[in-house]
Amino acid sequence: MTQQQRQDLDEILRHGPLDIGGDVAEQRAIFHEMIASAPLPDDVSTKQDELGGVPVVIVETSQLDPSAVIFYLHGGAYALGSAPDSVGLASDLARRVAARAISVDYRLAPEHPFPAAVDDAVAAYRALLDQGVPSSDIAFVGESAGGGLVAATLVALKDAGVPLPASAAVFSPWTDLTVSGASATGKAALDPALTPEALRTRARDYLGVRDPATALASPIFADLTGLPPLLIQVGSHEILLDDAVRLAARAGEHDVPVELQVWPEVPHVFQGFAAILDDADHALNAAAAFIKRNWAD
Amino acid sequence: MTQQQRQDLDEILRHGPLDIGGDVAEQRAIFHEMIASAPLPDDVSTKQDELGGVPVVIVETSQLDPSAVIFYLHGGAYALGSAPDSVGLASDLARRVAARAISVDYRLAPEHPFPAAVDDAVAAYRALLDQGVPSSDIAFVGESAGGGLVAATLVALKDAGVPLPASAAVFSPWTDLTVSGASATGKAALDPALTPEALRTRARDYLGVRDPATALASPIFADLTGLPPLLIQVGSHEILLDDAVRLAARAGEHDVPVELQVWPEVPHVFQGFAAILDDADHALNAAAAFIKRNWAD
Repeated sequence: MTQQQRQDLDEILRHGPLDIGGDVAEQRAIFHEMIASAPLPDDVSTKQDELGGVPVVIVETSQLDPSAVIFYLHGGAYALGSAPDSVGLASDLARRVAARAISVDYRLAPEHPFPAAVDDAVAAYRALLDQGVPSSDIAFVGESAGGGLVAATLVALKDAGVPLPASAAVFSPWTDLTVSGASATGKAALDPALTPEALRTRARDYLGVRDPATALASPIFADLTGLPPLLIQVGSHEILLDDAVRLAARAGEHDVPVELQVWPEVPHVFQGFAAILDDADHALNAAAAFIKRNWAD
Repeated sequence: MTQQQRQDLDEILRHGPLDIGGDVAEQRAIFHEMIASAPLPDDVSTKQDELGGVPVVIVETSQLDPSAVIFYLHGGAYALGSAPDSVGLASDLARRVAARAISVDYRLAPEHPFPAAVDDAVAAYRALLDQGVPSSDIAFVGESAGGGLVAATLVALKDAGVPLPASAAVFSPWTDLTVSGASATGKAALDPALTPEALRTRARDYLGVRDPATALASPIFADLTGLPPLLIQVGSHEILLDDAVRLAARAGEHDVPVELQVWPEVPHVFQGFAAILDDADHALNAAAAFIKRNWAD
């Protein structure tokens, strides 16, 4: 059953219209269309707001501890995706931890290159603290580019002396914009969603002529000392497998409590497919348990 | 408090008499003395037995599901340690999963070089299956060299077509007898227990003139496809940090469900110090939860 689910998902992604490296305007629409086609559960409510001048979407479900916040950074290779597009996955996780999710609509490349995304995430988080939400009641969550952005934002906040959240969980994080992991080629045939070329295109959009090894764009090159407990989930059918492994290696080297989970034979951000994939359900439960455990401490 | 515990343990190990690379007869006695000095809880009972011609120690506690077995492979760089020496840690974990532990007294180098240890572990496990214990009721556990031996034994069993256990958990596994991980030098000053030189001495004892990259001695070079769910725990104050990370990377690459946990600022096989270190207690609980979860499935 599970094996069949994995194959079905692979087929859907492999033959789908999304091309992460394609024309930005066209792919933004496709990205939105793919995600908006999955209906939200009835109990999910959303509200547009702003934090520190950055637009955000506040996501609530019927399961809600009003004090706890998932600070959510969506994926899309820094050029696609949006906070509204992220509501499905953000709400699915938020329900499991009984928290509000606040999804940040950080500015996208190529219109707004690096470090616009980091600046927006930092500004939104600072404004959340200024509203009186204790950092210990916040968990950072991000997928794909949003996962790399979670790590980069934590580094920027640490360097600025801002109190860090209780924990961070990242799904298939893109942490190396040099696209130099062994899995970039080693897993290319197995990955139904991403190609190294697509990532290099988007890295250029985001970074322009900057060095792609810039620490706040590629946090595997950052000093991660002092980061809060970090959970990293990744599928084994991903060119970004090594981005996850190397983030775990770097975090561990720098004395961060870190947990890496590799889920076999599933693709990039498989957690978004809980409706058709048991692995996604299990992974989201594991992420929720991790977040709750670090709030409880 | 926790920070103080970590510092205390570091001091104990840093100034202790154990020298993993020292004279074998002398260090075996010190290894035994260090471990035997910690009294066992009253409810732990042990029995000498044999499985497939290999001596084993059967460890029971008052918490016992008679059908479940921890198949335990002790540490000691393939030259030190013994099944009796492993009873403290084996029983501490076994109690948390309500299982019997069977600790294997595999032959040691230099008297019995590679592949004696692998052969003994394979023979003992086959005999356990022959007694009628289902593989699905068995979990492999090992620390240090025993952790590498767990991975090597799984590969050998898989290659021989023998049913594999439900899961495997390894603590600070030594998986690279070439001693070529970046942490071998990068963490040398922080590691209070091991040195690269000591490991190279013991690798020569175990392997003689064989290539230290031999897959069944250094399982980061093995084909790990088909292994059961694997939990890897390691401290960040270890020269073996990268052995753990690279085992996780290799397992993930080969579609093994794998979980890596890096525990900050704790040393090699810190799980053995639960009496004085809260991290050890938490790590053993996490390992027990992992083992039980994989039995339940």
